[in-house]
Amino acid sequence: MNNRYIFKLTVKVRDYECDLQGVVNNSNYQRYMEHTRHEFLESLGENFGAMHEKGVDAFVSRVDIRFKASLRSGDSFISCLNLTKEGARLVFHQDIFRASDGMLSARGRVEVVVVENGRLTKGEYFDELLKKTEA
Amino acid sequence: MNNRYIFKLTVKVRDYECDLQGVVNNSNYQRYMEHTRHEFLESLGENFGAMHEKGVDAFVSRVDIRFKASLRSGDSFISCLNLTKEGARLVFHQDIFRASDGMLSARGRVEVVVVENGRLTKGEYFDELLKKTEA
Amino acid sequence: MNNRYIFKLTVKVRDYECDLQGVVNNSNYQRYMEHTRHEFLESLGENFGAMHEKGVDAFVSRVDIRFKASLRSGDSFISCLNLTKEGARLVFHQDIFRASDGMLSARGRVEVVVVENGRLTKGEYFDELLKKTEA
Amino acid sequence: MNNRYIFKLTVKVRDYECDLQGVVNNSNYQRYMEHTRHEFLESLGENFGAMHEKGVDAFVSRVDIRFKASLRSGDSFISCLNLTKEGARLVFHQDIFRASDGMLSARGRVEVVVVENGRLTKGEYFDELLKKTEA
Repeated sequence: MNNRYIFKLTVKVRDYECDLQGVVNNSNYQRYMEHTRHEFLESLGENFGAMHEKGVDAFVSRVDIRFKASLRSGDSFISCLNLTKEGARLVFHQDIFRASDGMLSARGRVEVVVVENGRLTKGEYFDELLKKTEA
Repeated sequence: MNNRYIFKLTVKVRDYECDLQGVVNNSNYQRYMEHTRHEFLESLGENFGAMHEKGVDAFVSRVDIRFKASLRSGDSFISCLNLTKEGARLVFHQDIFRASDGMLSARGRVEVVVVENGRLTKGEYFDELLKKTEA
Repeated sequence: MNNRYIFKLTVKVRDYECDLQGVVNNSNYQRYMEHTRHEFLESLGENFGAMHEKGVDAFVSRVDIRFKASLRSGDSFISCLNLTKEGARLVFHQDIFRASDGMLSARGRVEVVVVENGRLTKGEYFDELLKKTEA
Repeated sequence: MNNRYIFKLTVKVRDYECDLQGVVNNSNYQRYMEHTRHEFLESLGENFGAMHEKGVDAFVSRVDIRFKASLRSGDSFISCLNLTKEGARLVFHQDIFRASDGMLSARGRVEVVVVENGRLTKGEYFDELLKKTEA
């Protein structure tokens, strides 16, 4: 885990997220990644629920996650994020590392499209938000 | 399990609902009970999401669940419901029985209030719905 | 949706699966797909929890889901499955169709590896199970 | 919210925990309370998963939650806990306060029994743990 990420969030595994195999159920990594994107959004001064109220919705169009090392009860992890644009889509590159030893636990690529008042956009809404961070 | 219930739903345990103890996590019984109430609502010709769109929301004000016998991977269960009114509140009496042997797994008492356009009501919306079933 | 699937399961959306955007939260499609695989397993005479007790665990190594049309409160869907083998990995091809109009809602590709008593296998456990279905 | 609690945890709402009504789904308060109890356990030097491995399981026998004010996207909350013993049962008194204004959001009473190697105990395992904190 190096410093090339634009956002990081440290999270503790919750025991109800573990399944009968004794490890975090796979679907929860997708939830961890969603929460990380939304916290990233808040770091830019925007809130996902408030965006929805304004008629702006970010929808996930594709998620691709590779699972490397299972997280367990008691583990903390660092959820890291980068962002690129490919045409109209925002592409989030999301890595989850176990905190105790820095082991890569899951690597995700999440494509998002932005819809304003029902119309697909080119993601201008996020362009504006991201400009603020560069200022 | 006798025939005194006004609504019953048969459901299969999903493995992601089981936690590291190898049994269904307690919070999922509350979810099973919510789903049963909403399916009961659909049996009356109404849908929870459509109600919300119309400005009518049912909110749970209290939930009291006693856990008797754990459900496990592979189990099916019968989720049963009765309904009484106590003042402005709808009170759902909800029992969950393991299908294989009829054992009581969980017994819930769930109080619900109905809010229309932000104002607490006396639950007249449900009175109208329930009249249909008695007709 | 044609007949080329080896397993199908009809499921109703549960309202707690919908998020503040009013549609099924993306992570739940991964859960629907897991539940479908495990029900497929039961159709072969095996249970996921029982497998775990025997020291045989199927672990998801990669999940790739494309989201096409959002499911909503009140929707039912048909969760369909096919299975191929690529080396040691089982690859599940999973499509979810909205029941009302047959619209493709989500398309997943889920890679699974089988671990027996802590050792990665070539998936022989599933080969045996699948033979039964061909008999 | 005064200082009479023996354990407190500050948590941020995750957007996937909100349902189509735009508020945190009721079942998640039960999950917040479970996570708080397990973090309290860790503060005593024990881990829920490790306990299970040793053959010691805490099972919830009853949960009673009153919902006062809905949490929403963007909210943080403080999850507070007290503990009494009633016979063989541990009784957790759990209050959740919205961080922004200290408003009580949910109040829970959660009864727990401790099972060791399949036998119901008088909760001696917790007595030992709690002694450490008083030392």
